[in-house]
Amino acid sequence: MAQLTRPGDRHRHVPRAVQQLRPALYISCFFALVLSITMIIPALVDASDQKPTWSVFALSSASVFCVSVLGIVSLREPMPAFTPRFGFLLTTLLWWISSIVAAVPFWLSPLGMTPAAAYFEAMSGLTTTGATALSELDLTPRSFLLWRAMLQWIGGIGIIAVGLFLFPFLRIGGMQVFRTESSDRSDKAMPRIVSLTRALCAIYVFATLACAIIYAALGMSLFDAICHAMTTLSTGGFSNHDRSFGFFQDSRILWAAVFFMIVGALPFVLYVEFLIRGRFTLWRDWQVRTFIVSVILMSIALALWLESTRNIAFLDALTQAAFNVVSVVTTTGYASDDYAVWGPFAYGVFFILTFIGGCSGSTTGGIKVYRFIIAFQALRRAFARLVYPNAVRPLRFGEKVIEQDVFDSVVIYFVAFFLLYAVTILALSLAGQDFVTALTGAQTALTNVGPGLGETIGPAGNFAPLGEFELWLLSIIMLLGRLEIMTVLILFTPVFWRD
Amino acid sequence: MAQLTRPGDRHRHVPRAVQQLRPALYISCFFALVLSITMIIPALVDASDQKPTWSVFALSSASVFCVSVLGIVSLREPMPAFTPRFGFLLTTLLWWISSIVAAVPFWLSPLGMTPAAAYFEAMSGLTTTGATALSELDLTPRSFLLWRAMLQWIGGIGIIAVGLFLFPFLRIGGMQVFRTESSDRSDKAMPRIVSLTRALCAIYVFATLACAIIYAALGMSLFDAICHAMTTLSTGGFSNHDRSFGFFQDSRILWAAVFFMIVGALPFVLYVEFLIRGRFTLWRDWQVRTFIVSVILMSIALALWLESTRNIAFLDALTQAAFNVVSVVTTTGYASDDYAVWGPFAYGVFFILTFIGGCSGSTTGGIKVYRFIIAFQALRRAFARLVYPNAVRPLRFGEKVIEQDVFDSVVIYFVAFFLLYAVTILALSLAGQDFVTALTGAQTALTNVGPGLGETIGPAGNFAPLGEFELWLLSIIMLLGRLEIMTVLILFTPVFWRD
Repeated sequence: MAQLTRPGDRHRHVPRAVQQLRPALYISCFFALVLSITMIIPALVDASDQKPTWSVFALSSASVFCVSVLGIVSLREPMPAFTPRFGFLLTTLLWWISSIVAAVPFWLSPLGMTPAAAYFEAMSGLTTTGATALSELDLTPRSFLLWRAMLQWIGGIGIIAVGLFLFPFLRIGGMQVFRTESSDRSDKAMPRIVSLTRALCAIYVFATLACAIIYAALGMSLFDAICHAMTTLSTGGFSNHDRSFGFFQDSRILWAAVFFMIVGALPFVLYVEFLIRGRFTLWRDWQVRTFIVSVILMSIALALWLESTRNIAFLDALTQAAFNVVSVVTTTGYASDDYAVWGPFAYGVFFILTFIGGCSGSTTGGIKVYRFIIAFQALRRAFARLVYPNAVRPLRFGEKVIEQDVFDSVVIYFVAFFLLYAVTILALSLAGQDFVTALTGAQTALTNVGPGLGETIGPAGNFAPLGEFELWLLSIIMLLGRLEIMTVLILFTPVFWRD
Repeated sequence: MAQLTRPGDRHRHVPRAVQQLRPALYISCFFALVLSITMIIPALVDASDQKPTWSVFALSSASVFCVSVLGIVSLREPMPAFTPRFGFLLTTLLWWISSIVAAVPFWLSPLGMTPAAAYFEAMSGLTTTGATALSELDLTPRSFLLWRAMLQWIGGIGIIAVGLFLFPFLRIGGMQVFRTESSDRSDKAMPRIVSLTRALCAIYVFATLACAIIYAALGMSLFDAICHAMTTLSTGGFSNHDRSFGFFQDSRILWAAVFFMIVGALPFVLYVEFLIRGRFTLWRDWQVRTFIVSVILMSIALALWLESTRNIAFLDALTQAAFNVVSVVTTTGYASDDYAVWGPFAYGVFFILTFIGGCSGSTTGGIKVYRFIIAFQALRRAFARLVYPNAVRPLRFGEKVIEQDVFDSVVIYFVAFFLLYAVTILALSLAGQDFVTALTGAQTALTNVGPGLGETIGPAGNFAPLGEFELWLLSIIMLLGRLEIMTVLILFTPVFWRD
């Protein structure tokens, strides 16, 4: 069992998990410090716009800076050994404390947000969900729009890093399958964490810049181009406009967004591998193939249906279908149109798509493609076993055998997902939300997509009309969804806190 | 591998599964023969009512009789060895052919039913679903009402028998867990199939009679008492009245129905054990405990909510809540009121309850309690494993260890369930059904509950307004749900038909 590096006499009767709270808080304070410094950027934007809201960000930055320095100084102590337990505690605490810090400017803002709405907006940003409790975005000061985009951008790189370095160690998130698949039986050890991180950041920054330049070249304002590039690559989905991408009315912009949302939805480790080792293995990856082929098929199916039922030219229908399908399936959550009024089939399609998500090791949320592949393989094997009960067949993922513990973790994810989903639907219903809002609100928060369906929270609506309870609840659900559920849920079990 | 008892030269190059079609059809013809004879009963009822529709049943009976005798004579051949493959083929074919036979009177009826509606009604009967494509039940000849009730009653005992004798052999349905649990480590072999069947039938008949007598004593007409007793014990849910149990306006009748629906939702093998061995182990069974406690808690929660939001006296609220909760959770599908207008919380509760179902080895459909218990135990174990990766803990169900293959079959059921659910939602949406109808129609067919939610198919509505495609589709889905999905699905895989 795990041991602290220096148990120390005063820790004698304190459970290990409680002891580890302090170092986890200590590290979180460093992240809060970084966030406080980044708040200077929106302050500068408003200052250059000569908007008085620059002071909101200046004040937020200063106060968070002071508190986190205080935390760093007072909580300093030797780091414990890095056990799974510490990993769960640290990951959850990092996201939780960051979301509180990120909410400060919204809370101090003149936008009339309740604490619940401010926290919801911040959490929706950091989890790259993209559900917004703000209406009238087009009248909102640029500082807040930039802050929302920055939160998603930071949250995006954050979840890739956690998915790459931490989740495999915690045995969740499925990157084990993925890595063995992509490394393709080569026995070379993966390069060190530092060089990996450097490559990862370079790719993320480069892709965002490329996206911003293309957006600007296609006619977006520079500010819109930067903000939307940040929320595209992170598959976040915050837009600067109430009409989201419907504001731009340019199919070339929609197709550019489709491309970069897909870039954000693929496993970043494959880009890193390409950069470091010069091997382009993207199309050899089963998860990527399945994802791309599914997206194309679903877009075409929806486009054909749109063409035939709504009398739209096929290419226009395909643009609309592809953009909104990719937006939902990558868990971005932009909308180019109110697809909820497209008719029953679209309604059903977008409901199902909201569950799916992108690839493991990407910025997307949702159940993710590799879990579906594994479930489908298990189903295939089950058929064979029912006919030939004594046959022994391993589960396969492409050329790779799936280990039992990876399979188990996929199963448990599904169990936890649907359990949490049911509880959230009931809680939202109890709070008085109508059926479709409760059903799709719970869903879209858990999968980090953003918009739901129905009158209130559909693609043409927002989360502002929801009550305080609903916003607090959905904030927690977004966090659970983002961190693969178990990471957070385990903190509420007795086994975690006992020795 | 399985071998035919007498392979015979002419079978040389025919795949085994195709060879087995003939004996499976042969057995199915016997069941069709039995059904044709039972059709005489509704004919006699109409004859005594001096209704011309007696001839519908007479004609149906005669034609089915002739065809099945023809089938029996022409298909006769030595039985093959009883392999799992033959088991799947036989079970599916039995239900499928029975549903076609059962549909004949509806199809020949003057009730104006399309072939799709007639087949839907028959399948809804035999699968004990209880969704109806008939409106104006109160004006329908008694023969058809009786036939509907008889189909559910036959379907009920049929699924218990299959669940007890066949599914364990096919390694689906979870009775393995159950039996070892209930037999409580005693090493005595279970008594022979014949005596078991006799006891099972005695209990089923006795319980139905008891229910009918109590219904009649509480004021139902004799005909209503008999029909509703048959559809209560089989947790079927067909009623003779458009308003279902709302017609009776007597809370004592509602409570009697609650009792007998629960009787139908518990594992019949425990009653059999009591009858044969005199041991009353009902309350020691984990599945039963969990089921009963959950039903009580949910009823009370809903009653408290009804009392507080709709200003109803608590006891009245409890009666309504308990009746409709038990009706949905046992997958019966009666309604005493249009609970869809009770408000958002009730809507959410009934949506979630529709998934749950009763115990294994009962007449209920749905996911069933034991699968939830196993999923929940797996979740508990997963938490422990995340903290202590090297700890080895078996899954437990009460005092019994759950074997890996039972756990696997539960996992596969969930995968198949949600996959089929998603496909059905999409298909119903494509056919133009609104979101709530598509969502809950697919659900209620797959879980064999009966009513869905929404304007059309909610507890106050029926399935008559649906199109032909929807009715055919939902008929198949009811069959899949009834036979634990995999039994039917496997017939559509190549592995089943290859040698």
